[in-house]
Amino acid sequence: MAQTLSRRIANLDELAVQLRRFADERGWEAFHTPKNLASALIVEAAELLEHFQWLTPEQSQNLPPAVRNEVALEIADVLIYLTRLADRLGIDPLAATADKMALNAQKYPAPGQR
Amino acid sequence: MAQTLSRRIANLDELAVQLRRFADERGWEAFHTPKNLASALIVEAAELLEHFQWLTPEQSQNLPPAVRNEVALEIADVLIYLTRLADRLGIDPLAATADKMALNAQKYPAPGQR
Amino acid sequence: MAQTLSRRIANLDELAVQLRRFADERGWEAFHTPKNLASALIVEAAELLEHFQWLTPEQSQNLPPAVRNEVALEIADVLIYLTRLADRLGIDPLAATADKMALNAQKYPAPGQR
Amino acid sequence: MAQTLSRRIANLDELAVQLRRFADERGWEAFHTPKNLASALIVEAAELLEHFQWLTPEQSQNLPPAVRNEVALEIADVLIYLTRLADRLGIDPLAATADKMALNAQKYPAPGQR
Repeated sequence: MAQTLSRRIANLDELAVQLRRFADERGWEAFHTPKNLASALIVEAAELLEHFQWLTPEQSQNLPPAVRNEVALEIADVLIYLTRLADRLGIDPLAATADKMALNAQKYPAPGQR
Repeated sequence: MAQTLSRRIANLDELAVQLRRFADERGWEAFHTPKNLASALIVEAAELLEHFQWLTPEQSQNLPPAVRNEVALEIADVLIYLTRLADRLGIDPLAATADKMALNAQKYPAPGQR
Repeated sequence: MAQTLSRRIANLDELAVQLRRFADERGWEAFHTPKNLASALIVEAAELLEHFQWLTPEQSQNLPPAVRNEVALEIADVLIYLTRLADRLGIDPLAATADKMALNAQKYPAPGQR
Repeated sequence: MAQTLSRRIANLDELAVQLRRFADERGWEAFHTPKNLASALIVEAAELLEHFQWLTPEQSQNLPPAVRNEVALEIADVLIYLTRLADRLGIDPLAATADKMALNAQKYPAPGQR
């Protein structure tokens, strides 16, 4: 990707702002209903899974560099739609994740804490 | 969620570290192959989509508070598996997203830039 | 499932007719747009995948009977939404599959035919 | 699709037999674990959904002929992996569907039967 100028993104808040501007400049806001974004998100999650579908567990941990690069871009696509969806709903993804982690810690206590 | 103590997560790097420790303490690392994590990710993306599947576009933008809370936790689940997967592959999600955004800017030039 | 009376379904055409009547009697036709049905289909495909997500390849071939029964019902759910979607679009699934098989045979010639 | 010779498929049993032979001739059986097939199935379900993701409900009911043809082939892909998966697990999809329909009839009684 030498020929593209990729600008560092500091955090999810900055990403949300960039994506909002990107969609707005292209007149995409009308298409970006939460329902549509949730569909687009799962479609990207499938493109990510597709790279792994015929691999053994071991192969999935040792991707050739070219595949790993494609996987990285699919991870980006999922993060893009996830951030866009959360932004349209006014949800802070990391705050929601902190809540979910607390619930998970209750649901699956660590061995020493049982 | 009043009774759970949710600790603030500063950024995706911190989330990756917390998830690594969480999986390690529970002996889950063996299950967390990239292939399995990519499956778990799409399963969570489907649980997110499920909230929207019968809604009109308008309804999807005006979720009742209880549904919105559930959606927030599904967004968290997607972010958790996405972060875990990226971490297992040694991929920085925001760096990959910056690369993808640069590609998208080339692919879909803004009207004024065409 | 001893207490339920399950009626044999002869083929996909009969299934399509039964599903049409089922939806009609419940006033579901308005919700059954192709877009919504395609969402419902992938949600069911995810519930199917969920049963396999942490299994080894070997375990996935030797499901305990209770899991196998649940998997059978998830397969049914996928077939139900697939049939409903095809019916709403006026597509004959087996005719489309015959076309796709012909394309696949061209794309992936058998070793002896290469 | 004038140039391909598509052979009529009478029913799901015949499709299962054709798919078994197709996979066997190409040495694909080792890849066709139920786990992998469930992944491939959801990937195809996503390719199907992708055609609808930005459409309005109304547009999704009035597909241009070219899109409708592509959708038909995606429906075929889902049916192919669903049939393959059921076959590998020794599950009869229509029998499972009859069971599921009986459960659905109990769960969602028709208005006149409530």
